[in-house]
Amino acid sequence: MIVCKFGGTSVASATQIQKVANIVKDNTARRIVVVSAPGKRSSEDIKVTDLLIDLADTALANADVAAKIQTVVNRYEDITAELGLGKDISEVIAQDLRDRVAGDRSNKELFVDSIKASGEDNNAKVIAAYFNTIGVPARYVSPKDLLIVNDLPERTFAVAEAYERLAVLAQSEEVIVFPGFFGYTKDGILRTFDRGGSDITGSILAAAVGAELYENFTDVDCVFSANPKVVNNPAEIKEITYREMRELSYAGFSVFHDEALMPVFKKDIPVNIKNTNNPSAPGTRVVPTRELTGRPVTGISVDSGFSTLYVSKYLMNREIGFGRKLLQILEDEGISYEHTPSGLDDISIIMRSNQLNLEKEERIVKRVQQELQVDNVYFRHGFSMVVLVGEGMRNSTGLAGRAALAISKLGVNIEMINQGSSEVSLVFGVQQNYEDIILKALYEEFFSAVPV
Amino acid sequence: MIVCKFGGTSVASATQIQKVANIVKDNTARRIVVVSAPGKRSSEDIKVTDLLIDLADTALANADVAAKIQTVVNRYEDITAELGLGKDISEVIAQDLRDRVAGDRSNKELFVDSIKASGEDNNAKVIAAYFNTIGVPARYVSPKDLLIVNDLPERTFAVAEAYERLAVLAQSEEVIVFPGFFGYTKDGILRTFDRGGSDITGSILAAAVGAELYENFTDVDCVFSANPKVVNNPAEIKEITYREMRELSYAGFSVFHDEALMPVFKKDIPVNIKNTNNPSAPGTRVVPTRELTGRPVTGISVDSGFSTLYVSKYLMNREIGFGRKLLQILEDEGISYEHTPSGLDDISIIMRSNQLNLEKEERIVKRVQQELQVDNVYFRHGFSMVVLVGEGMRNSTGLAGRAALAISKLGVNIEMINQGSSEVSLVFGVQQNYEDIILKALYEEFFSAVPV
Repeated sequence: MIVCKFGGTSVASATQIQKVANIVKDNTARRIVVVSAPGKRSSEDIKVTDLLIDLADTALANADVAAKIQTVVNRYEDITAELGLGKDISEVIAQDLRDRVAGDRSNKELFVDSIKASGEDNNAKVIAAYFNTIGVPARYVSPKDLLIVNDLPERTFAVAEAYERLAVLAQSEEVIVFPGFFGYTKDGILRTFDRGGSDITGSILAAAVGAELYENFTDVDCVFSANPKVVNNPAEIKEITYREMRELSYAGFSVFHDEALMPVFKKDIPVNIKNTNNPSAPGTRVVPTRELTGRPVTGISVDSGFSTLYVSKYLMNREIGFGRKLLQILEDEGISYEHTPSGLDDISIIMRSNQLNLEKEERIVKRVQQELQVDNVYFRHGFSMVVLVGEGMRNSTGLAGRAALAISKLGVNIEMINQGSSEVSLVFGVQQNYEDIILKALYEEFFSAVPV
Repeated sequence: MIVCKFGGTSVASATQIQKVANIVKDNTARRIVVVSAPGKRSSEDIKVTDLLIDLADTALANADVAAKIQTVVNRYEDITAELGLGKDISEVIAQDLRDRVAGDRSNKELFVDSIKASGEDNNAKVIAAYFNTIGVPARYVSPKDLLIVNDLPERTFAVAEAYERLAVLAQSEEVIVFPGFFGYTKDGILRTFDRGGSDITGSILAAAVGAELYENFTDVDCVFSANPKVVNNPAEIKEITYREMRELSYAGFSVFHDEALMPVFKKDIPVNIKNTNNPSAPGTRVVPTRELTGRPVTGISVDSGFSTLYVSKYLMNREIGFGRKLLQILEDEGISYEHTPSGLDDISIIMRSNQLNLEKEERIVKRVQQELQVDNVYFRHGFSMVVLVGEGMRNSTGLAGRAALAISKLGVNIEMINQGSSEVSLVFGVQQNYEDIILKALYEEFFSAVPV
C-alpha cells in the first residue's frame, strides 16, 4: 500500500487534478491520497489558502463576507466545471464556508485555522467526487475523530491515538482522499499543523497504515544537491538517507519539511519525492540507509539569519556548570540554539536571529554578566551556516581540509567550523554576504571536480 | 618592583641558590623572592617534597620518624654547609619538622599538607639567611596572617583579604623571601595550593604589591612553540599573550600552570619566564596584548586522555532545553567538559577521561536514555586534542584548511574540529595514537614552511 500526497500546485487546476487521477490509476497500490488546497496556477495567481485568510480577516473585521466567499467558490467552480462535476458540489462548498464563518470566534487563531483548513478539506471532497466519475471508487474522509491532535496551547502534533484510529483506513475498499494540513482535538476543535502542513498529514497516514512507501508529489523532478537558484544545473539526488535529508532541509532545502519526516522515519518507511508533472521521473528516494557511492558529499545547503552570543571568561572550562547555566539563560528567553563552538575560555552560541530582539539581547547580556561574572559577552549578527552533508563524509579523510581551503581561496574568513565525532555533516559559519560564492565554490570542489 | 619566583631545580643545591642570589643582586628592583622546596639535583635525585611525603606517611603509620627527619635535615645540610651558614639553621629545621610531626592528625590530608609545605618554608629560611651573609639584607616572611586562604573543603585559593594584607610587603626595606605553595586560613590552618603550587604564590604576591613584572625562573630558556620531545628544535616563543599561554598550557605546556596566571592577568602584570641557569637569555614574556608577527600560529599543543559522549536524537535542535538537560546530567556527576561539537541531530561532549569510570558511564548513559528519550547514546575513548594557538589566527584565512589538509595527508581521520567565532585557537580531535605524527606535520606546516 502506498500513501501519496499531492502539493498545492499538483491540485491547482482541473488539468493538474487529471494528472493526479492518472497517477493514482497507474498503480493500484496507491490507496490513500492526501491533498493540499489548490495552489497557484501561474506565478501571478493567488493560492486558495490566501483567499481564505483574506476571508477570515474580513469576517473578523465584521465586514460583508458574501463576495469573499463567492471568490473562493468561483475558484473551485473553475476546477469542478472543467472536471464535469456539476453545480451540487459548489453549494456544498459555499455552505461549508458560511458555516465556518458563522463558527466560534472566541479564539481568533482557531477561527482563522478553521477557515484556512477548508481549502484542503473542500479540495479533498472535489477530488474524491472526480475520482468516482472516472471509475476510481473513492471516498473523502474527514480527519475528524481520526487524526486526533493535542489540545492548545502547545503547537499541533498527532497524538498516539491518531495512529491507532487512522489504521482502519488500510481496510478501505475505496481509494481514500484525505485533506492535508489539519486534525481535530478530542473535543472536536480543528487545529492546523504549523510546520510541514500536508506533508506531515501524509507522513502520519503512511505510518498509521504501515505503508510500503510514502510518495510525496510536488512540482520538481527531484531534490538537488545544491540550490539551483545559485548553482547551475546541480546534480540530482537519487537516493538520500533520512538523516542526510534532515540535515539538508535545515537550510535551503524546502522541498520536504524535516519535521514531516518524523512519523515515517520512526517506521522506516521510504519516501519518494516525485513530480506530478513528470511522474515517470524516478524522483528522490529518502531511505533509512543506503549504499555509499564514490561521492562523499550528498548535498550542500546554506541558510542565512544566524547570530552568535560570544562569551569569554578566564578558566571557564574549569567551572563545572558554566555551560549549563549559560544555556539556561537562553532557555528562559525561549531561545533554541544550533551550535556551541568553544575554546578553553570562550564559547559562542549560534542561534537563529529571528528569535532575538534588542530587549532580549540586553536582558541576556546583563544576566550573563551578572550571574556568570564573565570577562566578555556580546552578540554578533549576519551569519550564514553552510552545511556539507553526506553519509560518506564519515570515512573521508581530508574533506574538511578541502572544504576549508575552497572557502579560503575566495579570500573569505571562516568564522566557525563545527564537526562532531560521528557526523554526516560539516558546518561552516561565514558572513552572510559571502554565502552564494561559498556555495558555488564548494559545489565546484565536491561535485564538478574529478571524483576522488 | 619585581616579584621573582624560583622553581625546585633553581633552589636544589648551594650552587643553584648562589645563582639565585646573583640574579637578585643583579637587579635591585627584585624585592620579593618566592621559593620552592629543593628539587632534584640530577635525574636520579629525590625531591625534598617527596622525602617529606615519605616522612608524613611514616608518621601516619605510627612508625619511627627520627631517621626520616634526619634524611630531610641532611638534604638541607648539604646546602647550608656549602653556603657557609653553620649548624644553627639545621636545628631550626629539625625542630620545625618535629613540631609538625607532633601536630594535629585529625584531618590526615591537612597533616600531610603541613609536612609537605615545610619544604618551601624551611628553604625560604635558608635562602633568606644566605642572602644576609652575602650583603643582601633579606627577611624570611611566613604566609601566616598574610596569605589568607579559604576554609575547607573547597580547593585552596587566596581570599580577597590576602591581597590587602600582602600589599604591605611592598614597603619592606629588606628583600622578602617568601615560601611558595601554601597559605593559612583565618584560623591558622595551613593549606597547600593543589594546582600551580609556588607559581601561584608568586602570582598572588605580584598582584598584591602591584609589581611591574613577575619573573618566573625555571630551568628552561623559554617556552617552545611545540613539545621539544616530539618536534626537533621547535621555535622559541619570545612574547605571548595571557590568552595564548592559557590555551597552550591546556595541553602539554607545563612550564607555567595556567591557573597561576589568574592573579597577574587580572592586574595586567607581565610575566617573564626565565632560566636560572642562563639568566641573560631573554626568556618568554607573557603579556596582556602584543603586536602580531607574520606567523599566525604561536604554538601547537597536544594532550591525550579525552573521551566523548555521543548523543543523537531526531529533531534534537528543535528541543529547547535539550543541551542544558544533557549538561546537567554530567554536572550531577561532577564532570566538566571541554567542547560540544554538534550537528543538527547529534552532539558530542568531549571531556577528560580521568573523570570517568564504568559505573559513571553506565549511570550517565541510562539517564540520557531515560530522561532525554534519545535515539543513540554512547561513550568513546582514546582521543587527543591538538590545539593550534595564535592571536594572529583570528584574521588568517585558510588556516583551518591548511591544518586539516596537513593532517589528512597523513591518512589520519579528523574526528572533531572546533573553531569558535572569535578564536585564537583551533582544536582538532584525533585518535590518541596519531598525536605525535600530527604534531610534527602541523609544526612542519606552520613553522618550517616558507612563511605566508
